[in-house]
Amino acid sequence: MNDSITNDFVRQLDRQHVFHSWSAQGNLSPLVIAGGRGCKMWDYDGKEYLDFSSQLVNTNIGHQHPKVVAAIQAQAEQLATVAPAHANLARSEAAKRILARAPSGFSKVFFTNAGADANENAIRMARSMTGRDKILSAYRSYHGSTGSAIAATGDPRRIPNEFARGHTHFFNPYLYRTEFWASNEAEECERALQHLKRVIECEGPQSIAAILLESIPGTAGMLIPPKGYMEGVRKLADQYGILLILDEVMAGFGRTGRWFAFEHFNIKPDLIVFAKGVNSGYVPTGGVVVSDPICRHFDDHMFFGGLTYSGHPLAMASIVATLDAMQEEGVVENADHVGNGVLASGLRKLADKHAVVGETRGVGVFHALELVSDRESRAPLPPAEMAKIKAALIDKGLLPFVVENRIHVVPPCIVSEAEVEQGLSILDEVLGVYR
Amino acid sequence: MNDSITNDFVRQLDRQHVFHSWSAQGNLSPLVIAGGRGCKMWDYDGKEYLDFSSQLVNTNIGHQHPKVVAAIQAQAEQLATVAPAHANLARSEAAKRILARAPSGFSKVFFTNAGADANENAIRMARSMTGRDKILSAYRSYHGSTGSAIAATGDPRRIPNEFARGHTHFFNPYLYRTEFWASNEAEECERALQHLKRVIECEGPQSIAAILLESIPGTAGMLIPPKGYMEGVRKLADQYGILLILDEVMAGFGRTGRWFAFEHFNIKPDLIVFAKGVNSGYVPTGGVVVSDPICRHFDDHMFFGGLTYSGHPLAMASIVATLDAMQEEGVVENADHVGNGVLASGLRKLADKHAVVGETRGVGVFHALELVSDRESRAPLPPAEMAKIKAALIDKGLLPFVVENRIHVVPPCIVSEAEVEQGLSILDEVLGVYR
Ligand SMILES: Cc1ncc(COP(=O)(O)O)c(C=O)c1O
Ligand SMILES: Cc1ncc(COP(=O)(O)O)c(C=O)c1O
Repeated sequence: MNDSITNDFVRQLDRQHVFHSWSAQGNLSPLVIAGGRGCKMWDYDGKEYLDFSSQLVNTNIGHQHPKVVAAIQAQAEQLATVAPAHANLARSEAAKRILARAPSGFSKVFFTNAGADANENAIRMARSMTGRDKILSAYRSYHGSTGSAIAATGDPRRIPNEFARGHTHFFNPYLYRTEFWASNEAEECERALQHLKRVIECEGPQSIAAILLESIPGTAGMLIPPKGYMEGVRKLADQYGILLILDEVMAGFGRTGRWFAFEHFNIKPDLIVFAKGVNSGYVPTGGVVVSDPICRHFDDHMFFGGLTYSGHPLAMASIVATLDAMQEEGVVENADHVGNGVLASGLRKLADKHAVVGETRGVGVFHALELVSDRESRAPLPPAEMAKIKAALIDKGLLPFVVENRIHVVPPCIVSEAEVEQGLSILDEVLGVYR
Repeated sequence: MNDSITNDFVRQLDRQHVFHSWSAQGNLSPLVIAGGRGCKMWDYDGKEYLDFSSQLVNTNIGHQHPKVVAAIQAQAEQLATVAPAHANLARSEAAKRILARAPSGFSKVFFTNAGADANENAIRMARSMTGRDKILSAYRSYHGSTGSAIAATGDPRRIPNEFARGHTHFFNPYLYRTEFWASNEAEECERALQHLKRVIECEGPQSIAAILLESIPGTAGMLIPPKGYMEGVRKLADQYGILLILDEVMAGFGRTGRWFAFEHFNIKPDLIVFAKGVNSGYVPTGGVVVSDPICRHFDDHMFFGGLTYSGHPLAMASIVATLDAMQEEGVVENADHVGNGVLASGLRKLADKHAVVGETRGVGVFHALELVSDRESRAPLPPAEMAKIKAALIDKGLLPFVVENRIHVVPPCIVSEAEVEQGLSILDEVLGVYR
């Protein structure tokens, strides 16, 4: 790192040349990041941050894991890029390791560049396999920003982007803000399933290719489905010959203390969509894990999708190293232990202590604090207050992940108990204003 | 490289685990590639290939350029990944270098993971900027495989994927198989422009956000627009307040002997879409170069698009190193000199000599041989014959890029005259059967 480089210089260079996601460009003042290691990041002026965002909830293995870095460097030395049509050893090895962590009944992996195009291709497979058009997905969801992925997305970022047809949205369960006038988990579950059944009936089951769901909706705020819901969805899908696509882009690969988040339920999907945690985003990649019947279908049917960087060697080498290291180092177990231990209990304590916390929920290192201006009415804390909280957390050295009125507490899966305590104490301090 | 690894082993591992693009999966037998350097690649059994495909026309700087490899390794050492919202030095440096090669009037770069999502975002910008929905694009085109990109694509791979609305296609100029009953270039140009004008009028100019065109259609077979066509398109766009998006994913960054292929014409687009050559695909990346008026629009209007790996540090470092090395080493000049010299004249000789060649066309290292079973009727050589030719070329150590009835002759931009002679002599030998 060059000592003469300053945060101001880097920020100005960014403002001059770089067009940013999801923003008006005029008044951006991006946080400058120079480097990182484990759960720590730092800027050019020597300020250190504890990363409780995992960036965009992708660095499950933490920053700069030496084995993953070394694997990328070694693959770069050997062969950086190759066309997807050629057979490449790193690609097969990566697919093999992903399949080894999937349940039985899955036999191939189609690789993409990220989460959005992984969803695009899962949707494509489902449509081709069933000969049906419609994709059902949840209002409280995010599936990516390309043509069909953003139309499948439920959150309001969909609205200026609705240029793909064949997408219908339904309400997924969320007891804290129930859409079904439910007063407990069991009721929320039963009514959410009844609602989904009615949507299927009214849309026409014979027109529906797939139900696309995040196993645990992430951007929407760690909406853990009530007991029995996912099993009920699977049953409905089977009953109507509809495929079930589970989007594990954010929740997969350790985040919830399991390799896949759907392991918390007693079901298997037909297609598993992944990205982020599979290699912690060290190289852009994603993909679809394809179940046996769908693989068999495509043995003698053309698959009409493809991309230049499908199974890119650098990405593949980073997947191999990431999954091996996670296994060897018990990273998923750590997410389970620390996440469901000190993190979950610490967040419950914050919720008890600070009236601004309406609810805390989550599993593993996948938690949310839902902030409200009034516990009774559950009115979301307004954006200006949330912006102040975000600024205060950053000021105190915590990189948070703030979405609407929620703080998503999503450190890397390798986070230590000590780091969790440190992060919780910063949260405690900042939320103290709202005691 | 492990000496005990064989082609058969790698191929079998691939067939067991990897789902491939644009294929039925049942009878695939992918070519095995172990490594590469410059214009050469090799397998595990010691066979060497001369890469006249540049993989998917992306390795403009050749395989394993030491400076690009070193830059990826160094960035991996420092910081492999960071969220797009944070300012990152490599990203600004990459944007700066791309903008330095663009004409005046462009001020920011939005980074994506590849070509398809770059087109998605250019389309999104055009729609948001104009408040109009429709995108006009050419039948003879390929723009990528995600929701809107594949609907914008003209080639038949679009048809099973038409789930995005707002796309209208028109016929682009292609004198050899004219859609306009033209008998020379000038007529083809004039009629193609008249056709486009009529499509605009009939679709309603006030409903059209953008015309999206490959500067020189690549997958469709290096369809160099006739003199005056692109200028005419620009004029039509201006006349109707329609934005012009030029897709430079395949033709850009040296391929045609210029930094951008549109430099062959006397026009500037409103948005430039890039991927592939910008970093030779060493790390998945792509993006949109945004002109000043569009940048100004988004200063105070939200941009509703984004992705986890926008401006990914590894990709950015590889862009910086690639563009610097291309400049220092005169790679674009080499593509011009060798491509328009020995390559173009050698291909003309093959066309003169072998009756199976209906036409040869191209610029720089971006050429096509169009094969016909009859020169008079111009009937395309049937797929079975093309498959035989492809197999014979590979057998003789040439990696070709075969599309429909065409051999695309697209070596890396660094190709030497000696390598061109070697490739031409293999082509000569194989086409000799059809003398
Ligand atoms: C559940 C889910 N699916 C898909 C995506 C899109 O992934 P990407 O941004 O890599 O395209 C995201 C990104 O946050 C996600 O959380
Ligand atoms: C002109 C053009 N645009 C877009 C694309 C899509 O790029 P990608 O495969 O990286 O999504 C391609 C790929 O060949 C292309 O040639």
